[in-house]
Amino acid sequence: MNRKLIVRIVGLILCIEAGCMVLPFLVALADHGVDASAFAYAITICGIAGVALALVRPEKTRLQTRDGFVAVGLCWIALSVFGALPYFFAGAHYVDALFETASGLTTTGASIFPAPAALSRGILFWRALTQWMGGMGVLVMVLALLPTIGEGSVNLMKAESPGPISTKLRPKTKDTARLLYIMYLCLTGAETLCLRVAGMPWFDSLTTSFTTISTGGFSVRNESIAFYHSEVIAWIVIAFMFVSAINFSLLFLAVSGQVREALRSEELRTYAGITLGSVLLITLELALRGGEALYTALSHAAFQVVSIMTTTGFATTDFALWPRFSQSVLILLMFVGGCAGSTAGGVKVSRVVVLFKSLRRELQRILHSREVHPLSLDGRRVDEGTISSVSVFFFVYLLILLLCTAVVSLDNVPLATAFSAALTSISNVGPGLELVGPTCNFGFLSGLSKVTLSMAMLLGRLEILPLLMLFFPAAWRK
Amino acid sequence: MNRKLIVRIVGLILCIEAGCMVLPFLVALADHGVDASAFAYAITICGIAGVALALVRPEKTRLQTRDGFVAVGLCWIALSVFGALPYFFAGAHYVDALFETASGLTTTGASIFPAPAALSRGILFWRALTQWMGGMGVLVMVLALLPTIGEGSVNLMKAESPGPISTKLRPKTKDTARLLYIMYLCLTGAETLCLRVAGMPWFDSLTTSFTTISTGGFSVRNESIAFYHSEVIAWIVIAFMFVSAINFSLLFLAVSGQVREALRSEELRTYAGITLGSVLLITLELALRGGEALYTALSHAAFQVVSIMTTTGFATTDFALWPRFSQSVLILLMFVGGCAGSTAGGVKVSRVVVLFKSLRRELQRILHSREVHPLSLDGRRVDEGTISSVSVFFFVYLLILLLCTAVVSLDNVPLATAFSAALTSISNVGPGLELVGPTCNFGFLSGLSKVTLSMAMLLGRLEILPLLMLFFPAAWRK
Repeated sequence: MNRKLIVRIVGLILCIEAGCMVLPFLVALADHGVDASAFAYAITICGIAGVALALVRPEKTRLQTRDGFVAVGLCWIALSVFGALPYFFAGAHYVDALFETASGLTTTGASIFPAPAALSRGILFWRALTQWMGGMGVLVMVLALLPTIGEGSVNLMKAESPGPISTKLRPKTKDTARLLYIMYLCLTGAETLCLRVAGMPWFDSLTTSFTTISTGGFSVRNESIAFYHSEVIAWIVIAFMFVSAINFSLLFLAVSGQVREALRSEELRTYAGITLGSVLLITLELALRGGEALYTALSHAAFQVVSIMTTTGFATTDFALWPRFSQSVLILLMFVGGCAGSTAGGVKVSRVVVLFKSLRRELQRILHSREVHPLSLDGRRVDEGTISSVSVFFFVYLLILLLCTAVVSLDNVPLATAFSAALTSISNVGPGLELVGPTCNFGFLSGLSKVTLSMAMLLGRLEILPLLMLFFPAAWRK
Repeated sequence: MNRKLIVRIVGLILCIEAGCMVLPFLVALADHGVDASAFAYAITICGIAGVALALVRPEKTRLQTRDGFVAVGLCWIALSVFGALPYFFAGAHYVDALFETASGLTTTGASIFPAPAALSRGILFWRALTQWMGGMGVLVMVLALLPTIGEGSVNLMKAESPGPISTKLRPKTKDTARLLYIMYLCLTGAETLCLRVAGMPWFDSLTTSFTTISTGGFSVRNESIAFYHSEVIAWIVIAFMFVSAINFSLLFLAVSGQVREALRSEELRTYAGITLGSVLLITLELALRGGEALYTALSHAAFQVVSIMTTTGFATTDFALWPRFSQSVLILLMFVGGCAGSTAGGVKVSRVVVLFKSLRRELQRILHSREVHPLSLDGRRVDEGTISSVSVFFFVYLLILLLCTAVVSLDNVPLATAFSAALTSISNVGPGLELVGPTCNFGFLSGLSKVTLSMAMLLGRLEILPLLMLFFPAAWRK
């Protein structure tokens, strides 16, 4: 294990984080200096720690697979611990600050603040920026910005990028990372302009774009997107949420002119199919049982289905008050999440597709006395190792979900609250149901629950194994 | 596919069912003839249908794996459809009767009757007997009682017996089936005597034993085991529930004098460990937070943990009123269930052990760059096909659970009610939480929910694939 290189990477990540904090610091300065000192302290501490660790000189520059996993796990914990400092110096309890930062970086969007609109613009900007940083990945940012860290840096990218199969857009990791960030920047810029044109103020447009493209869901308004009372804004946000939860390599194919090829993707088709089906079912229930007018029902259903399935978590209505069937559809969507290789959370559509295919294969195996057929996705064979990883992932996802539910239930909240809080955390959605619904917040939970849910968010964002690895003694042996 | 032989097997099963109905018919006659006519009609219809189908003469006597699955799936549907007749002729709606029968045969124990004590003794006896028949399996009974049906009858046993790996106690299927039923009878007899000595009336002792050893959970009393206000009875029931959820091949080892070997089983140790751990946690919460005296807390915790984990579903207290952490522990236990090769439901302890081991293997695979170690249970290697079946099973279990939750939520019941109703059905437990808690019943649900939950019970009892197979067009091709 290359411990020194791992320490150095954690250092570099903290330097990047300190650098990112300069932006909200400038916003705070422009905003009559409110909370500027909080950022000044945080930048100093984070920067000193980062530089000190980054100065460590490794003898070897080779990163192995497990080094990549351990490095990514440690980096994200360090990012959360130091990223909490601005909130802390601005007056929040440290545990609350940690929760808010983990929720930001993992693009969950669950908040401990009852009224975000009451926060300073500097803090609001930092909240949105953490989501933007975490969406595409902070290590991917490091790979894109800095000269080569060492050989095997692809292992960092593998460990941080979501999905069962990692795709390369370019032979070099560095070029892939740059290309991903260019697309990410373009999408963010495009949404900011659209929202501004639709009448949103500049600050709202920019922060909302940060938290849409990252499928994060933090809003600068207490009422989330419902605040703007604009159908145009709602549909712009729907469109960008939907696009952001598509595999970025498909988006790249599409912008390279290979739209047809992109549309052939089984994952994309399934994702679109589930979205449309869910919108239809919920629209029907809202119109027939909830008594909403058909267009209102459609608009609310489309917004919430896309918001939940892409694991963004914005709201235009309080879906915790919807009839129960619609709520249970949302719960199903929280499990599924978006596509692999996007900024979305959840189990991911491609894993669900693989699981369905392995179910069909199991039935065929019984029918044709034990022949095993290979399983394919988009015409390419999925190797048995990947299928087994997908199954293990699904099991450990459920296991962590149920254990977190048990821990949160120690607060003696109703079970649907505890369960939806755990699910929305591990799937990086944001709002849950009942007491943690879209008009509520997570502030009332105990410290233990907040730390547990923060861990669940990190586990969900990193797809569990990099963090779980840290608790596995064999990972630390030489 | 050997269709004629499958039809004949369904016929034989219905004859056995008609034969079993004679017992409650005699009880009804002895009980001043109340509901005797209901049984007379049911026996006639079931018997005629059974004989008609059993007269079909197959050309070949060879049963293949898929034939076994299809036959078992069809048999259980037929058993439920015809087993509902006594309730129907005694005045229940047919959908309610179907629910009660599926709940009985699958040893779930969820009921649509608000007050079982108001039912006639004949009906109560039939309720208990369906659980006893379903516990060890009706096809296993056929194999034990009748001369050889055909070659490959082991495929019937495989499809009906729970667990990822089926064990043979004897080289011949018939002998294995007989041995299982002998142990089953002995356990039932032993518990009946113990309960009688502890002061329960004969009728209660016998029916309670039927529903304990089968881990069913139907009681002839409205208050379940709480009715008897006896600690001795509670602990007798705890002991027999615990034993009945142990793999019967281990019980066989133990009575053959190889107690040490039996105690070495990883599944048994895990099962005992989970039980003890859960009792400890719940006792602590009931004593510290619920304010119960330590012994009362222990007694209630032990009874409910064993009752839920073994998927029996008896109650000595209303656990739907317990503090939420204890409830969430019970939910976890409902998932796990008892041991493979026992009469219990749930995912089964051995599958959970395999899933944990495959998680550890996945972590090792990343650490040691992709070497795959074989996975072993009790010192024997588990082949990759079994591991993959276990993973597929876990996925489809969760999938059906969530889909059933969605269907039940169409009744607009709270989500925890819908979820626990679905979970308690697929895991064959019986009571759920909130509106379907141990003091409530399932009668208020819609017909759609009742039919869906009945299907969930059958899917859970048959471990999904035999029933799923029926909806898979390829299973019906020649």
